[in-house]
Amino acid sequence: MVSRLELGFLPILGTVTEACPPGEAESTMVLLGVLLSLVAIFVASKAGGEFANWLGFPPVLGELLGGVIIGVSALHLVVFPEGGMDSSHSLIISILETTAGLSPDAAEATFKSQSEVLEILSELGVIILLFEIGLESNIEQLLAVGIQAFIVACIGVVVPFVAGTAGLMFIFHVPVIPAIFAGAALTATSIGITSRVLSEIGCLSTQEGQIILGAAVIDDVLGILILAVVASLAKTGEIDIANIIYLIISASVFIVGAIVLGKFFNGTFVALASQFKTRGRVVVPALILALLLAYIGGAIHLEAILGAFAAGLVLDETEPGKELEELIKPIADVIVPVFFVAVGAKTDLSVLNPAIPENREGLIIAVFLIVVAIVGKISAGWGVFGLDNLNRLGIGVGMIPRGEVGLVFAAVGSASGALSPALDVAIILMVILTTFLAPPLLRIVFKTETPSPSTETT
Amino acid sequence: MVSRLELGFLPILGTVTEACPPGEAESTMVLLGVLLSLVAIFVASKAGGEFANWLGFPPVLGELLGGVIIGVSALHLVVFPEGGMDSSHSLIISILETTAGLSPDAAEATFKSQSEVLEILSELGVIILLFEIGLESNIEQLLAVGIQAFIVACIGVVVPFVAGTAGLMFIFHVPVIPAIFAGAALTATSIGITSRVLSEIGCLSTQEGQIILGAAVIDDVLGILILAVVASLAKTGEIDIANIIYLIISASVFIVGAIVLGKFFNGTFVALASQFKTRGRVVVPALILALLLAYIGGAIHLEAILGAFAAGLVLDETEPGKELEELIKPIADVIVPVFFVAVGAKTDLSVLNPAIPENREGLIIAVFLIVVAIVGKISAGWGVFGLDNLNRLGIGVGMIPRGEVGLVFAAVGSASGALSPALDVAIILMVILTTFLAPPLLRIVFKTETPSPSTETT
Repeated sequence: MVSRLELGFLPILGTVTEACPPGEAESTMVLLGVLLSLVAIFVASKAGGEFANWLGFPPVLGELLGGVIIGVSALHLVVFPEGGMDSSHSLIISILETTAGLSPDAAEATFKSQSEVLEILSELGVIILLFEIGLESNIEQLLAVGIQAFIVACIGVVVPFVAGTAGLMFIFHVPVIPAIFAGAALTATSIGITSRVLSEIGCLSTQEGQIILGAAVIDDVLGILILAVVASLAKTGEIDIANIIYLIISASVFIVGAIVLGKFFNGTFVALASQFKTRGRVVVPALILALLLAYIGGAIHLEAILGAFAAGLVLDETEPGKELEELIKPIADVIVPVFFVAVGAKTDLSVLNPAIPENREGLIIAVFLIVVAIVGKISAGWGVFGLDNLNRLGIGVGMIPRGEVGLVFAAVGSASGALSPALDVAIILMVILTTFLAPPLLRIVFKTETPSPSTETT
Repeated sequence: MVSRLELGFLPILGTVTEACPPGEAESTMVLLGVLLSLVAIFVASKAGGEFANWLGFPPVLGELLGGVIIGVSALHLVVFPEGGMDSSHSLIISILETTAGLSPDAAEATFKSQSEVLEILSELGVIILLFEIGLESNIEQLLAVGIQAFIVACIGVVVPFVAGTAGLMFIFHVPVIPAIFAGAALTATSIGITSRVLSEIGCLSTQEGQIILGAAVIDDVLGILILAVVASLAKTGEIDIANIIYLIISASVFIVGAIVLGKFFNGTFVALASQFKTRGRVVVPALILALLLAYIGGAIHLEAILGAFAAGLVLDETEPGKELEELIKPIADVIVPVFFVAVGAKTDLSVLNPAIPENREGLIIAVFLIVVAIVGKISAGWGVFGLDNLNRLGIGVGMIPRGEVGLVFAAVGSASGALSPALDVAIILMVILTTFLAPPLLRIVFKTETPSPSTETT
């Protein structure tokens, strides 16, 4: 007799599964876990986004907060293994055990597989976001502000890095390697959050918007270089020059190559899209290019999102490009929030608890880091020259959010063992605060000068 | 000094990764593997779809064939672990090793994780497909042909099952349990393939289309019951009555419940969608409902795709429902082909090789199974009563493709050890042939009677 519980092992039609040995993930259960997680993510993103919008904040802030609520800090609906979480911490896994007959034997493996899928979906989300931002951006306009963007990026990297590292060493007597790590974390800029907010308030195509975007892209490349330097420093105590030269060359070749090959890609895309007759004739070729460039960006140890952004830039100007902008919208509406909610879900607010001694020390250092983080980036806004009537404060504020990029520095630092728990807490707090403060600040700063259009988009 | 190769372990910004112990998947590499696989899948689906369309075949056939070309039968670009494949068989993994610095230590784990993600994406693909088909269907029209669909489904299940099982036992002297397994595999109908072709040739909303769709849905439920019976028979030699009653009740409650609650869901959806002001106001609430019902469908051991179909049916009639149909299109254009290409990629054509003795025996049995498969389903078309002027042949042909559902029976049979290799080959061949023959047949049969509209859709 097949018992009720064993039925959970019965392969549901539509999934080719084989008999599952205990301890392995059941592919049906992984699917159900992903479905339920996506339901939670969409509810959080929509509820948070609408609520934030109603309060006058950018929707993305609400999505991040929605993520915090369903994530590791509160409901534990969507948690990821990286923070030491296992299946017993995941509410989704408990629900699967109760309602779908997931066997406790397979819980851990199912949790891991499900988290992996969500992780990749969230990364596909930020890839699609940057592709869409690329489509909305104008390559000529971006090149026109190239020098300004470069200067903004450099100031925004050098000032926080030097001030942060020096301050930690001389005020807080932090040893040199962890101080450099923390300084490096201060240099990051989250293109995702900044560009999404700019797009939401209709400022992406303004001169300020393009400078911020360009600077954030350059900052990203600089960030990769800094991370490579810092990581090798923490690991071996010395700097690998060959590696850094390799990264600089590959970054330059990639970005210039993508722009130069732009016209060729564009022609092919237009020709294909106009020849094709079956469904997805515009959107599929465009995504092929976006994912291919994302792959190349990742494979040469740059970033996947830079490739997707380049693809969007390149496809921008064409006739099918305009159609594409409309078609990519519903796709982005669905996949992009997965990224922001996941960032929120991973944010552990327990570092705010002053009852833990390390947190107290961390909170004090955090205040210093936050001040440096904000002042350092705002100062970058005044590096722009030769352009009048510019919202310099807006540019600086646009560079503030560290987002997921800052968390990478913290994670690498923690993993290398270089960071003390207090410093780790301080960096995470700095990342959280800059990430969550920037969207409302950005809206305020741009509202005072630009008559922003209605944020109502479908 | 950090060597060039070790850089592969360096977390790329945008992904929070920790230092990876050898043998574990690197999350950046999994992302890169998924990106490259998606590029291959999209190229295969677009090239195959356009080519098939140009030849006058339904695009979905081209997507399946595109999958065959990049899959286990040919290029090995997209392979899945289930057929005994490991990372050394995957061309994508080789490319990652060569171009992105994936370490051989992590190849196996990366391959597994990447396959899992693609598997889930492909299942999300068929879920979105059925949601879209539900949106395109009309609930009243479907209920109006309910009795006819039920009769078609029953005949299409009973005739192939009895003829197949009896023929195998008496002509080929196959023992009773494997004969029942093969007979059960003959009962399946792939809603995915049938509904996609009907949609492509513009026949989904005809009376025939609705009967086929309804019958395929009922067939799916019957298939789950049969699989439960056969699986428990193979395992213990007896039939678990309690389980079967549970399945029948849960299926009825679910389907009736979804239809009855339809009006309520619809009202809530309309109210939400008209209140919401941020991006994704229509598509996100709709997907919440679709994924939630898909989860419930899967959790009660029905199927996720049935839940998604029910959600589509329910949302159909509303004003935002019309907008939704347009918005879901680009999403479906991107995710649905992942499913069809994956089905093709998993199809192992080496069973066609007559040099292997088992294949020869299998080929002979296969001829018998294919005849039963086609004749049995076509006979179901003549079970429709009370309606004149109906394309009965078309209805029968619409039920022919076994698709992924048939493969599940073969996989469960193989895993239980009940099937001889020859019978296994025969079932797989029957599934392949019915799946690949049905799309062109369906188009021919419906072209002779219905003046089909242009298949050109955007």
